[in-house]
Amino acid sequence: MRSALPAPGTVLLLIDLQRAIDHPSWGVRNNPHAERQLARLLVRWRNQGWPVWHVRHDSTSPESHYRPGQPGHEFKPEFAPMPGEPVIPKQTNSAFIGTDLENRLRKGNHDRLVVAGVITNNSVETTVRMAGNLGFQTWIVADGCFTFARTDWNGTLRSAEDIHAMSLANLDSEYCIVTTTDALLGTSS
Amino acid sequence: MRSALPAPGTVLLLIDLQRAIDHPSWGVRNNPHAERQLARLLVRWRNQGWPVWHVRHDSTSPESHYRPGQPGHEFKPEFAPMPGEPVIPKQTNSAFIGTDLENRLRKGNHDRLVVAGVITNNSVETTVRMAGNLGFQTWIVADGCFTFARTDWNGTLRSAEDIHAMSLANLDSEYCIVTTTDALLGTSS
Repeated sequence: MRSALPAPGTVLLLIDLQRAIDHPSWGVRNNPHAERQLARLLVRWRNQGWPVWHVRHDSTSPESHYRPGQPGHEFKPEFAPMPGEPVIPKQTNSAFIGTDLENRLRKGNHDRLVVAGVITNNSVETTVRMAGNLGFQTWIVADGCFTFARTDWNGTLRSAEDIHAMSLANLDSEYCIVTTTDALLGTSS
Repeated sequence: MRSALPAPGTVLLLIDLQRAIDHPSWGVRNNPHAERQLARLLVRWRNQGWPVWHVRHDSTSPESHYRPGQPGHEFKPEFAPMPGEPVIPKQTNSAFIGTDLENRLRKGNHDRLVVAGVITNNSVETTVRMAGNLGFQTWIVADGCFTFARTDWNGTLRSAEDIHAMSLANLDSEYCIVTTTDALLGTSS
């Protein structure tokens, strides 16, 4: 438990939870229960009437499964936006670049963000780094994000969990507070 | 050799190369020859009359050695700006937030950046992520940056070199091209 429940008005910002993330070409992921945890957060946020905002990746890369028109571009069914929930389309990694996200947050007097989604060390991390540097009080949901195994620059294979853990360490205290679904919901697992 | 020499007009952007980075409280670093490599880049850039820009961290944290007024706030002597070289003061990690860096680049028609400095996985990485997402063609100098050992979110101690290598892997191809001093100078070590 590293944080109390954020105040009402805190935006739940879901990043790139589209069908493309389930494509096998990504490789081995961590946090197999992330979708279940995210569903719990969604229920709470919607029951309370708190803001749920969906960032959607509109890739411009011809080979990306996230490209508009591909089946992978659709939201994963369990994370489809409800009527009235904003969708923020983006074409880069950061949800703040080339979008109206910052303006929307400031106009709505939303100074707190809970960020979750995919992948931890790419769009999620870039968005959280910018959110913190722009002055928003930001939480990242450790068990509501995931990533994939890859090699580092020296050629060493790193597991998805190791990459995830390094990303969270980079972010915590410097850009955001790392928290968990249970901590946010005030429950224990 | 992963890239050719960037074109004239490419900005050499040096990040947070101030005395504070030498404080022993940081712990164990990697790339002990980074300063020597950076000095080689500086000589080439200055001899060619190419733009050298200095990002200076003005910490607002009372305990930071980077706080203005502290001895650590001064540039390391070998990286002191020459007359006419811009200094970009920043208070967050990203050199693009709360600064005129983006405007300066666009006004000067500089669409290419070579980024180096400290620390790899914090101000350097955040600045490079934003530079790439903002559309600037960006290189990071692998042997012209360094970082420090730390634990990841799961409590595993990671060496400075491991953290550096993970950061470069996150950045390469997605936000920038990872290169080396020798590749940039067209020499071999």
